[in-house]
Amino acid sequence: MAKFCPTIEQLIESLRCLPGVGPKSAQRMALHLLEHQKASAQQLANHITHALDTISHCEQCRMLTDKPRCDICENPGRQHTLLCVVQNPADVFAIEQTGHFRGRYFVLSGHISPLDGIGPDDIGIPELIQQCHTHPPQEIILATNPTVEGEATAQYISHQLAQTSITISRIAHGVPVGGELAYLDGNTLSRALNARQQVETYD
Amino acid sequence: MAKFCPTIEQLIESLRCLPGVGPKSAQRMALHLLEHQKASAQQLANHITHALDTISHCEQCRMLTDKPRCDICENPGRQHTLLCVVQNPADVFAIEQTGHFRGRYFVLSGHISPLDGIGPDDIGIPELIQQCHTHPPQEIILATNPTVEGEATAQYISHQLAQTSITISRIAHGVPVGGELAYLDGNTLSRALNARQQVETYD
Repeated sequence: MAKFCPTIEQLIESLRCLPGVGPKSAQRMALHLLEHQKASAQQLANHITHALDTISHCEQCRMLTDKPRCDICENPGRQHTLLCVVQNPADVFAIEQTGHFRGRYFVLSGHISPLDGIGPDDIGIPELIQQCHTHPPQEIILATNPTVEGEATAQYISHQLAQTSITISRIAHGVPVGGELAYLDGNTLSRALNARQQVETYD
Repeated sequence: MAKFCPTIEQLIESLRCLPGVGPKSAQRMALHLLEHQKASAQQLANHITHALDTISHCEQCRMLTDKPRCDICENPGRQHTLLCVVQNPADVFAIEQTGHFRGRYFVLSGHISPLDGIGPDDIGIPELIQQCHTHPPQEIILATNPTVEGEATAQYISHQLAQTSITISRIAHGVPVGGELAYLDGNTLSRALNARQQVETYD
């Protein structure tokens, strides 16, 4: 098989560590960087190295940050009695985008997945439980993804905290705003029906 | 708008220099590298820097290579009288993959595009013309892309070499192997009809 020189092949291979990048895209990226974007490519390499050197997990909430504690944990304006548990840093970003949540977060490193050998200890659940014992919040919102693994993770956490006085809640499942019932999967629809809420009527 | 810390934002921004990577993918890539692929990310940064330091254009054919002259130009087994002109290093790779071409290449840096201010001098056509005068090949195959700009580039080169004794050819346009006529665009179909070839009959 025809190949580029080893240096280019090596670069193509390393670009494949990026999520969603297969052999074709990696080749296109490598050639694009070397042909048209030399300055940006050097900057990218520098920024990767810089981020790897400075970014770590917030010691309180495990969010990615370049400080010992992240901006949200350090913010005195946030409700420290309301704790939202999410699976990934990207989830914090998504919830912050809504602008409607004023509590704190706890960021797990993914979800429990026994088939892949990922147990509670691997994703930071012991740290969460310990934090709930030393500084118990009033309420914990379990905002793990509505997948089988996300549900299992939420179940596990709520089970671990059953003996405490903390109110434990789960984000609502239901019909997405702007969606159409006809195109929704049956599972979501039946959960939306089960979780129906009474409409207030005024006369 | 909610944001990550500056170091992560900077990394997300630099990942957008990769082709086909928008803000959402860049964010996903940055978080993936920092959460799950720290070792690969460092390797990627090193390989980008190494490639930028060592890769340049082959002094004969302008292919990307880590040596002064690329392996194809250095290969005594290749026909030096047959020169294939392509737009990008990726095209050389694609043609080499077929295993059916034994000549040499000349790699332009893209195509002529007056609207973008890209003229013949910007893509290496003067070097090609000069090479054709100092070491004239017997035949030049113009294998630029079958787009408006690719055609214009091929036209320009053939015009510049009209006074020489070099045979100038263009890769064939027609129906792709395995394609279906009903789904082909009219332009390709009419070119395939015009370029029809007589079928040899044996009796």
